[in-house]
Amino acid sequence: MLGKDYPAQDCALARALEVVGERWTPLILRDAFYGVRRFSDFAAHLDIPRAVLSERLRHLVEAGVLERRPDPERPGRDAYELTPSGRELWPALHALMRWGVRFHATPGRTRRFVHAACDVALDERGLCTRCGAAPAPEDVLTFGPGRKPPREDAVSAALQAPRRLLQPLVLDRDPDEQSRTAPR
Amino acid sequence: MLGKDYPAQDCALARALEVVGERWTPLILRDAFYGVRRFSDFAAHLDIPRAVLSERLRHLVEAGVLERRPDPERPGRDAYELTPSGRELWPALHALMRWGVRFHATPGRTRRFVHAACDVALDERGLCTRCGAAPAPEDVLTFGPGRKPPREDAVSAALQAPRRLLQPLVLDRDPDEQSRTAPR
Repeated sequence: MLGKDYPAQDCALARALEVVGERWTPLILRDAFYGVRRFSDFAAHLDIPRAVLSERLRHLVEAGVLERRPDPERPGRDAYELTPSGRELWPALHALMRWGVRFHATPGRTRRFVHAACDVALDERGLCTRCGAAPAPEDVLTFGPGRKPPREDAVSAALQAPRRLLQPLVLDRDPDEQSRTAPR
Repeated sequence: MLGKDYPAQDCALARALEVVGERWTPLILRDAFYGVRRFSDFAAHLDIPRAVLSERLRHLVEAGVLERRPDPERPGRDAYELTPSGRELWPALHALMRWGVRFHATPGRTRRFVHAACDVALDERGLCTRCGAAPAPEDVLTFGPGRKPPREDAVSAALQAPRRLLQPLVLDRDPDEQSRTAPR
């Protein structure tokens, strides 16, 4: 099986891929930009083995991309948040999403990204198509295609409505479900 | 072992990752932007198992990101070139490189990207820091850090000098080495 490092590649892209290039990791980061912060919410939305999710989150925390901190709304539990360096991944993640929309996505099913101050879409470089600014993620509104999402988990449903990137996602949930968090 | 698809993720990013998210694929695309076109040159520079390289190239051709066509300089042999959709990956690839440079690369060892017309660096969105344009890859000059690269293959050496992105890389090579190309 292939490892996750590229020790013989002297290149900033290889270093970046060692941090964020593993399978599922870009989707975990996507969810973090959408405001997902809890292990149980990542697990519900991504539907991946919990051991894989744990390992990916741990690696992102070690690399300084996510921070694990006490969840202010759930005493004794933790939440994951993008660090300043993690937030700087927004241009790369947005550019790859745009490419996916343009060449490989299902028409009519794609998510929108809008500069909140101007209420117009971002271009493929993440610039506002009205004012030309490059909005930070917290100044970007996102919303789903509005139709019934194919996934029925609570996170997919909540992410259909317009919300700012990085705004913490808080769901009313079954307490049993909330208890399924990662071991410390 | 985890597969390469994300069938339950209704998201353009998941579709993009199914095409370009596999291990080594972003580095293959990086090399294609640097002008690498021959199987033997990808193999020398990336130093990966030839079966993995073959499989990744095949997948990129099937997905319309690379085109496999007869090499004009080597009758009977093929070369791989970025298609128009492949070239549109430049903003995403450049943004991820920039992030790697900023947070995870070795200082003094990073590659430069310059708008050829203005002779100044690109910013993190890939815009020219003088004229503000978003140059297409063929209008971007790139060069290595100038010191002796840690890798000693001919591709690494050739990529130290300034060259335009997408300009085909042609090396004088040992004919035996040239013959190690992929089976059709």
